Amino acid sequence: MATNSQSPTLTTQSLSSLPPTDAKARVSQFMKQLQDEIVHALEKLDGGGKFREDTWERPEGGGGRSRILREGAIFEQAGVNFSEVWGSHLPPSILTQRPEAAGHNFYATGTSLVLHPRNPYVPTVHLNYRYFEAGPVWWFGGGADLTPYYPFVEDVVHFHQTLKQACDIHHPEYYPVFKRWCDEYFYLKHRGETRGVGGLFFDYQDGKGALYRGPYTDSEAAKYSNQLGEIPPRSWEELFAFVQSCGKAFLDAYVPIVERRHKMEYSDRQRHFQLYRRGRYVEFNLVYDRGTIFGLQTNGRTESILMSLPPLVRWEYGYQPEPDSPEAQLYKTFLKPQDWVNWNSSLQT
Amino acid sequence: MATNSQSPTLTTQSLSSLPPTDAKARVSQFMKQLQDEIVHALEKLDGGGKFREDTWERPEGGGGRSRILREGAIFEQAGVNFSEVWGSHLPPSILTQRPEAAGHNFYATGTSLVLHPRNPYVPTVHLNYRYFEAGPVWWFGGGADLTPYYPFVEDVVHFHQTLKQACDIHHPEYYPVFKRWCDEYFYLKHRGETRGVGGLFFDYQDGKGALYRGPYTDSEAAKYSNQLGEIPPRSWEELFAFVQSCGKAFLDAYVPIVERRHKMEYSDRQRHFQLYRRGRYVEFNLVYDRGTIFGLQTNGRTESILMSLPPLVRWEYGYQPEPDSPEAQLYKTFLKPQDWVNWNSSLQT
Repeated sequence: MATNSQSPTLTTQSLSSLPPTDAKARVSQFMKQLQDEIVHALEKLDGGGKFREDTWERPEGGGGRSRILREGAIFEQAGVNFSEVWGSHLPPSILTQRPEAAGHNFYATGTSLVLHPRNPYVPTVHLNYRYFEAGPVWWFGGGADLTPYYPFVEDVVHFHQTLKQACDIHHPEYYPVFKRWCDEYFYLKHRGETRGVGGLFFDYQDGKGALYRGPYTDSEAAKYSNQLGEIPPRSWEELFAFVQSCGKAFLDAYVPIVERRHKMEYSDRQRHFQLYRRGRYVEFNLVYDRGTIFGLQTNGRTESILMSLPPLVRWEYGYQPEPDSPEAQLYKTFLKPQDWVNWNSSLQT
Repeated sequence: MATNSQSPTLTTQSLSSLPPTDAKARVSQFMKQLQDEIVHALEKLDGGGKFREDTWERPEGGGGRSRILREGAIFEQAGVNFSEVWGSHLPPSILTQRPEAAGHNFYATGTSLVLHPRNPYVPTVHLNYRYFEAGPVWWFGGGADLTPYYPFVEDVVHFHQTLKQACDIHHPEYYPVFKRWCDEYFYLKHRGETRGVGGLFFDYQDGKGALYRGPYTDSEAAKYSNQLGEIPPRSWEELFAFVQSCGKAFLDAYVPIVERRHKMEYSDRQRHFQLYRRGRYVEFNLVYDRGTIFGLQTNGRTESILMSLPPLVRWEYGYQPEPDSPEAQLYKTFLKPQDWVNWNSSLQT
């Protein structure tokens, strides 16, 4: 399993296309719309809670609007952020990946969300899409991933299928490459577990095209090149269209799962396990997550960055699920990379 | 306020003394005894819970014994770890501070604890003392710090006074230097708050002596040298004696506070605030803490490393204490560096 600091791509030397002159305005417009649409749909779905909005300004440049729903009927907490920031220099964690950006002003805009449902049968979900410009370079990044506590295979397959459809319209390699990237990125090395059942993740998509290295080092990758995924060169417009499709697919991927599960009965046992597993979400976000680290390093608004943390969490020393329990099933089957879209239902049990 | 990645010392060029041939055995013996004494005293103090012990081995070399008390009468969770590990290379985070250790085997031993009391009037406390050898270099590090939720000035002064006495036997500069170092180290930059009311912290004490730079850069420090603390060269024996005094002072510093506060009545309001403030403990340990990062980077035993995390935690978006409330008092007076041993009681309110 690759470490999170490794870049899983081998960038080829082709030139990327230039962004249109109104690129920033178009992307930030889309990101705001995405926030609006999702917030509107989630309020309707919840049927109880309302989002509160805080707009904020960043002293160094830019700002955002944070929207949060707390103590809803379905969502114990739902945070949906839009931000658009600029400044004189990107933080070191990004410059090591994009050294061409050094010495240049930067611009970044994006929408992100984390939803923490109350019912342990409803999975937690995360989405983040973002766009950067810095001197000669620009790129898109983001994805969406699902974190169930008591998973149902049909929900997981539905989530992946929906995202795959959004990808396939644009390129057949997007889903297989970005699905594997997600499995590697949302991985808790110190636990030997994926965060959940994955979804999509990609970063530094600058249109130049790339071989997807996966878990291989550069030299291994050259040897196993037939096993690598390949994203061919793409124009700015093609990538933006792809990101828009992914963003718009989110509600279709997630809402039906909530509708199917939110009325299921549960007891203290399930709630207890949910609070325990939420600890892994905290561990991932504070130890590994690029968005969180970028936010804290660039003097972002702490309350908005840490809106991803669950409202109530447990840690328990030495916890082990009982053998053959539903909790053990989560670890055994779901917290590792699986080929969900080709899942054979005969293997489910 | 200095960032945590900065080394707050200016090392002078004098040679350090060599450790005795039985240095490792003597230090690890002391660290084990310290664990035994503290665990014994805490069980007696708690009067209900018992510590459970897990011994563990580290595949790369060494191991430890983790002791944990859960759901006690006073302590919701109390974790006291001893470990002694060795290997072929220190992680990068340490090698940047001690480049002489590169390419050498290392040895590290230490005892650490975090106690999470149930009653919000009883502060959380942390202790960690550790010793390293790697090729030509050796050093001691560690400290102890207090994190109250509803603080009493007399408790804070008592904690600092007791640690100061342990320091003063060995050198008058230890307390002022290591108290300031603690304020800077246990600082949550993204919150603009200290973790609690501090105590002692020091690292890389190799006997060479050092000027304490505090919040100054190298060039500023040269200008303001009259405002710097100075730890003169010390022998290995002198430093070990100092660390032993600090370790042994812990129970005197903390137990009387527990005895005074653990029967105080509290309601949901205090409990609610305690769980919220515990979130800061999680944020510090996962984002900044050297011990946690060292453990996770060296493939340490995750359950033992994360024993410091509280059993139950809340996050709440946009929380602000009510003006002039006891909660506001914590932020206003206690979550910033203060000269506790010279605290003037007329300024308390």
